[in-house]
Amino acid sequence: MYDCVVIGGGPGGICAAIYAIRAGLKTVILEKLGVGGQIAVSDIIENYPGFPSISGPDLMRNFEDHAKSVKAELVFTNVKKIETGDEGLVMHTAKDPIKTKTVVICSGAEPKHLGFKGEMEFMGRGVSTCGTCDGNFYRNKPVAVIGGGDTAVKESIFLSRIVDKIYHIHRRDRFRAEKVLQDRIMSRENIEFCWKSNVEEALGDDSGVTGLRIKDIESGKTRDLAVDGIFVFVGINPNTSFVDCKKDDQGFIITDVNMATSIPGVFAAGDCRVTPLRQVSTAVGDAAIAAFKADEYISELEGRSYEKVAKL
Amino acid sequence: MYDCVVIGGGPGGICAAIYAIRAGLKTVILEKLGVGGQIAVSDIIENYPGFPSISGPDLMRNFEDHAKSVKAELVFTNVKKIETGDEGLVMHTAKDPIKTKTVVICSGAEPKHLGFKGEMEFMGRGVSTCGTCDGNFYRNKPVAVIGGGDTAVKESIFLSRIVDKIYHIHRRDRFRAEKVLQDRIMSRENIEFCWKSNVEEALGDDSGVTGLRIKDIESGKTRDLAVDGIFVFVGINPNTSFVDCKKDDQGFIITDVNMATSIPGVFAAGDCRVTPLRQVSTAVGDAAIAAFKADEYISELEGRSYEKVAKL
Repeated sequence: MYDCVVIGGGPGGICAAIYAIRAGLKTVILEKLGVGGQIAVSDIIENYPGFPSISGPDLMRNFEDHAKSVKAELVFTNVKKIETGDEGLVMHTAKDPIKTKTVVICSGAEPKHLGFKGEMEFMGRGVSTCGTCDGNFYRNKPVAVIGGGDTAVKESIFLSRIVDKIYHIHRRDRFRAEKVLQDRIMSRENIEFCWKSNVEEALGDDSGVTGLRIKDIESGKTRDLAVDGIFVFVGINPNTSFVDCKKDDQGFIITDVNMATSIPGVFAAGDCRVTPLRQVSTAVGDAAIAAFKADEYISELEGRSYEKVAKL
Repeated sequence: MYDCVVIGGGPGGICAAIYAIRAGLKTVILEKLGVGGQIAVSDIIENYPGFPSISGPDLMRNFEDHAKSVKAELVFTNVKKIETGDEGLVMHTAKDPIKTKTVVICSGAEPKHLGFKGEMEFMGRGVSTCGTCDGNFYRNKPVAVIGGGDTAVKESIFLSRIVDKIYHIHRRDRFRAEKVLQDRIMSRENIEFCWKSNVEEALGDDSGVTGLRIKDIESGKTRDLAVDGIFVFVGINPNTSFVDCKKDDQGFIITDVNMATSIPGVFAAGDCRVTPLRQVSTAVGDAAIAAFKADEYISELEGRSYEKVAKL
């Protein structure tokens, strides 16, 4: 039986494993595909403190080296279900079931894509799904923002302080974001709203994005916007279907400040949980706490069995 | 007027500045003495993900380089008081007052010292104040733990899974830690309790600590314990006297999940706030959220003034 199973091999998962192993817990990382999570597909990361500017794959190699230095065990398998029971927790995977005392879920989340031409081709080279991560790369340049929900409007407000001009594209004639956010976005002077418009195609060349073609839904007329960046905010999917704990309506796991989920012994950290910000920095902060609390949970279990024996 | 004043130049403060500056906020870091915070005086750090093993000063140099890369403004001054008012927030310092829209407090905390001979001489070379940070350096070795409160007992339980043997020294004949923690520590088989004992002296040589001399309070007899590490847990002092917001009874700042304090526009991150764990990883996670929320707070202010004008 393991002391701690970490689900996910991104920055959060690797940090949780480092903390759990250094705390003396028998630990394994279960990863579906390959280590790295979202950052493995990031072009340049400039906001993980200590690395002024580093490519996603390079940063991930540093994390991997760190995992190796603590001799972390890594198993490539997909967790299908977490079963709870008196004898601990059981991870059901494509391979043999894995028993453990605690679990730290660092399974991440994936931004949804819109499906326009060039969206994936230019992802990380002009197309982005995170203003906090990439906004600074477009300082004093024109960008497009796509989406009509709370996140899209918040991100547009955020970006408006950094970039030269924003074309905010939405397929309807108004945002569905909450009223107070609508007031805020209307106060920005460098945002041009392109209502009732569909996104046709990201334009670009070898250097990356150079523009965005949109189409007026009513007139059918297309318009080419000269932008260096395209920010797509059409939702984000957490990878949490394998666990049956309390979640919000989008499927993000609800935790307390100790990263504890509604299932005793199961903790969650990083992008997969309800959190104000999804960054490498926040994932490692969450994960350190989660592993620390997993260790404390085990001491609690052991203390309880000692009490039982002492009472006999 | 600044958009954001960051108080403290440790890992949290530098991370907050990176996020604030990349978000387009006019930002300054106010630091009392020198950048680095607690880690500048740490010997080796092996749990900040991405750096498998690095000296405290070297890690801090990486943080400093990062701050320079975003052109962070750093002013050496001691904040004496944060004044709140309709026109924003005013930092009173030894120099001119500094006006700002938001503040992120990353002023840290300092572990208390006991004052025994050799304590400071061997700090970072055998004497430690953090089990999560340094426990792993004493894997399968004997160590001493000093203290009788919740933290001392929790840390002893934590260390018991990693080290070979613990001598737990306390000047009274029982712990003042809560009952459940006392049960837990009694369930550990590799802890020897040295009750009613005072700490006399850390023994050691150029290689670091080799032992600890304790003295039985009643008999006056001394005993030399052969240990490689000495963990001192006699309390921790947050640097928060300059701000008049909600705090716990030890002076740690109380925040919500957005790192907001009880004063609008004032946020706190890292060691100075009430948090389950005090690490570089958690400080940067907190700080990223605090800066992100400071930016959102400013947008809120601007949205409100826009609404006011729109209503006229």
